[in-house]
Amino acid sequence: VFLLSCVDQPGVVATVADFVWRIGGNIVHAEQHTSTNQDNPAAPGLFFQRVEFELGEFTATRGELTQAFHPIAERFSMDVKVHILDELPRLAVLASKAPHCLTDLLSRSKRGELAADLALVASNFDDHRELCEFFGVPFVYVPVGSSPADQDQAMLDLLRSENVEQIVLARYMRVLSPAFVEQWPNQIINIHHSFLPAFIGANPYRQALDRGVKMIGATAHFVTADLDQGPIISQDVAPVSHRDDVSDLTRKGRDLETVVLARALVAHLEHRVLPYGNRTVVFH
Amino acid sequence: VFLLSCVDQPGVVATVADFVWRIGGNIVHAEQHTSTNQDNPAAPGLFFQRVEFELGEFTATRGELTQAFHPIAERFSMDVKVHILDELPRLAVLASKAPHCLTDLLSRSKRGELAADLALVASNFDDHRELCEFFGVPFVYVPVGSSPADQDQAMLDLLRSENVEQIVLARYMRVLSPAFVEQWPNQIINIHHSFLPAFIGANPYRQALDRGVKMIGATAHFVTADLDQGPIISQDVAPVSHRDDVSDLTRKGRDLETVVLARALVAHLEHRVLPYGNRTVVFH
Amino acid sequence: VFLLSCVDQPGVVATVADFVWRIGGNIVHAEQHTSTNQDNPAAPGLFFQRVEFELGEFTATRGELTQAFHPIAERFSMDVKVHILDELPRLAVLASKAPHCLTDLLSRSKRGELAADLALVASNFDDHRELCEFFGVPFVYVPVGSSPADQDQAMLDLLRSENVEQIVLARYMRVLSPAFVEQWPNQIINIHHSFLPAFIGANPYRQALDRGVKMIGATAHFVTADLDQGPIISQDVAPVSHRDDVSDLTRKGRDLETVVLARALVAHLEHRVLPYGNRTVVFH
Amino acid sequence: VFLLSCVDQPGVVATVADFVWRIGGNIVHAEQHTSTNQDNPAAPGLFFQRVEFELGEFTATRGELTQAFHPIAERFSMDVKVHILDELPRLAVLASKAPHCLTDLLSRSKRGELAADLALVASNFDDHRELCEFFGVPFVYVPVGSSPADQDQAMLDLLRSENVEQIVLARYMRVLSPAFVEQWPNQIINIHHSFLPAFIGANPYRQALDRGVKMIGATAHFVTADLDQGPIISQDVAPVSHRDDVSDLTRKGRDLETVVLARALVAHLEHRVLPYGNRTVVFH
Repeated sequence: VFLLSCVDQPGVVATVADFVWRIGGNIVHAEQHTSTNQDNPAAPGLFFQRVEFELGEFTATRGELTQAFHPIAERFSMDVKVHILDELPRLAVLASKAPHCLTDLLSRSKRGELAADLALVASNFDDHRELCEFFGVPFVYVPVGSSPADQDQAMLDLLRSENVEQIVLARYMRVLSPAFVEQWPNQIINIHHSFLPAFIGANPYRQALDRGVKMIGATAHFVTADLDQGPIISQDVAPVSHRDDVSDLTRKGRDLETVVLARALVAHLEHRVLPYGNRTVVFH
Repeated sequence: VFLLSCVDQPGVVATVADFVWRIGGNIVHAEQHTSTNQDNPAAPGLFFQRVEFELGEFTATRGELTQAFHPIAERFSMDVKVHILDELPRLAVLASKAPHCLTDLLSRSKRGELAADLALVASNFDDHRELCEFFGVPFVYVPVGSSPADQDQAMLDLLRSENVEQIVLARYMRVLSPAFVEQWPNQIINIHHSFLPAFIGANPYRQALDRGVKMIGATAHFVTADLDQGPIISQDVAPVSHRDDVSDLTRKGRDLETVVLARALVAHLEHRVLPYGNRTVVFH
Repeated sequence: VFLLSCVDQPGVVATVADFVWRIGGNIVHAEQHTSTNQDNPAAPGLFFQRVEFELGEFTATRGELTQAFHPIAERFSMDVKVHILDELPRLAVLASKAPHCLTDLLSRSKRGELAADLALVASNFDDHRELCEFFGVPFVYVPVGSSPADQDQAMLDLLRSENVEQIVLARYMRVLSPAFVEQWPNQIINIHHSFLPAFIGANPYRQALDRGVKMIGATAHFVTADLDQGPIISQDVAPVSHRDDVSDLTRKGRDLETVVLARALVAHLEHRVLPYGNRTVVFH
Repeated sequence: VFLLSCVDQPGVVATVADFVWRIGGNIVHAEQHTSTNQDNPAAPGLFFQRVEFELGEFTATRGELTQAFHPIAERFSMDVKVHILDELPRLAVLASKAPHCLTDLLSRSKRGELAADLALVASNFDDHRELCEFFGVPFVYVPVGSSPADQDQAMLDLLRSENVEQIVLARYMRVLSPAFVEQWPNQIINIHHSFLPAFIGANPYRQALDRGVKMIGATAHFVTADLDQGPIISQDVAPVSHRDDVSDLTRKGRDLETVVLARALVAHLEHRVLPYGNRTVVFH
């Protein structure tokens, strides 16, 4: 899979398609998008493309493909990411006390829905050891102890020593330090239990009840240094009514959080998500 | 229809049902709700009830029913509203340039979906005269002229002189003065083109694009003195993607606004909506 | 909780409310519905009511309450079901190979979302023993062996010997015999992986693909002797596109099935579902 | 816009992109899809592509573009449709008594949402003349008279004499003859008021009530000689409950029908819909 972005210019699509053809590949899926500048429609837009192709009889490594494509990338000043679908990234799931997203991701991983090697589960609570063992995934307890900063650093060290490439925060209720976040730019996905940008921060279901909304939501987004401000990947909502108190909203919200997080993660692992600025292109 | 609210206490349901039975009525629909205090669950909650009944062979005016019920209302310190379903309130629709909500409400009124006497349409633009004439509804142009405050006052005078009881803001893009709003407490419904409380204020679709959300919403709410802060009656959302620019969001949003406003208005006119504090009970 | 149904007649609501008051109860929730006869609107309709009340300081058994209410039930020719919310019914989950609905129900049961005593899981495959042990629920393997009829009888015997009162078919891919079904009238809930009545029978996702639908659905319903024809409790759908093949539909469908089945079961266990003829009243 | 389909084979994407580039065009949007054969995944699939491009300074007619592309189409045995976005097809709307879809389409046409020249409205009732005049669209009354076959023929003659290219059945309650349908293959869009294939034929809302479904639907599809069996373009559903009788379903269904038909028509007029067999590819 090639994920490309560059300033829009004539000939990009033809050149990329020609490249794939010349190396003996067959394009299985290709999606593209051109984003116009809302403040200046006359300016050239940004061009995004996802090209998935099969290599036929021969094989090539990620490095070889990147190098072969390099002249084209340079000619169009492209930002290019090359992924081999057979090479699964090492994925870590971080969770706190609530088990619903974690259990769901473990189940999906077991039945082969996640294009990743689920390397470990880590938590600031020692609650999920048995669950992870049942699913055959290592569990590591990283207690907060005397200092939140120490815990953040310990978690960071753990994930680096395990060569983790992708991280999912499955209701992990700790704020990551900027130093942590910058190690995995646009590789950390969080689920926030509201329809962002409504109800940023703590206790969104209580906030939702107090405002009297008629729907609750969940938002999966990349984590950036700004809390709940990163690029949104997926959102969904469910109707609620005056009969629902905070515990009802929490219960209904669990189903939303579970599905929205899984949907975002699956798309990301299939290399369908291209973040740019504070937004994302999500190809289907 | 009786719309009741009081502090929750034993015997309310039985007493009301008994009252209806004694006056020869037959309860067609009855819904009730008890709202617990989230901060103090041990405190008595608020009790809400909607009782719709037929009077059989005899008839009674709204005043007579209110008076007959008065002892019960006093005994339980109830807030009571009595409505006769055959008595249609005088309704005014206020619109600015966009015709989609207005056209939809006129169509629904014509085919009998609104339990109201559509008395007039008023606007700060002279654009919808022909449309209203086609549907047989008087149209009044209330220009802004030199002073927004004068226009607000002129609109207020018009609606009072027409004995308007219910008001719908069908994409009416002017902020009503507090003096205007307090004339029709919880009788003015507005449609805001976002999923409140996200994107309060101007240009919510542009705000939505800039934040990169994956769904847009619409919110129908009662108008209070605080902009976009009144009790929410109905909300809905629609999925959007990276392909949608502001004009796409605006187009998709039109369908949402139209349906959400109509849904809220129909419920309100059927006396299914009980505002309390900043929230609503909406019985179905 | 009282679940009542009878021919609509004046005074029912008042009489029931009065009964609850006299025995010292306080009505927490009450919903009612009157179903008119579509073929003869002038005929009296059917009246349904759910009354949930607290008994205050005293207690009463299900039998005592039923007996105390008996004169009223007789007077109005009511069909009455009395449930004590603290008395949890014994529930069995039947599953075949697919684990998604089963895992979800076990998780919900563990976190207290199901108002039932999850007595056992039984299956025609020996696949879920470890999973059930992890959640602390007995697992019984009931193999098909030489005769499907024998397996049906063995399952029936097992559930009766375990005093099972409620049954959920969590993707149990065997057709129950009429003799089995009549043991638990309107107490067996099945999830069918289509939007019934579309795509009755086998392979609904393949049928959906062949018809080229743009949404797939799931339907939870009571099991009757007629395959996929029982009263529907809950339904939902998800969008699909030309890009989805049968395996995509199956994967997307899993999330639907899981949520729709759980939603129906929770409502049923909270005594919110009243079947009548081939339809249901579902109070919220 | 090029709409292409052919048997999947290497080099198609590159060749098409190269063609556009050589004639000086710039690809604005390109979507492609390869449909695998579910019964024989090893067989070559069908390839579909929509390529939208700007021609820059020069212009070309539809015929010139088709001719220039001919060698490529022949080489790959392609089925090709070429559309110039500035050339609006002549569109006719057929309606019976119900005005909701018709009113909506007239409104959308007026505010520029339909990429078509709305040539006329025709009906088997003389009800919508005033409405059409208000929107400035000619209205023709084609009465049924003594023979349904004559009416069908009269309508066919009218539409041919008006050079109509696209037809929308906006709740037109007459079955078109095979001779009529074959004049506009995959150019006639109908709205059926159910979630097909459920509730084919007459009175789907009554059928839905009798089956006790918890959601109702609407389906927009191309008209073929088989009633309600043509390729589906768009579907949607709305929740209903035991409280809804046939008139409620009809009312709720109107909003669904309106939106689903408009969504399908807009996509079709923007050349995003490729029918194949009994299915459609709908590019977004």
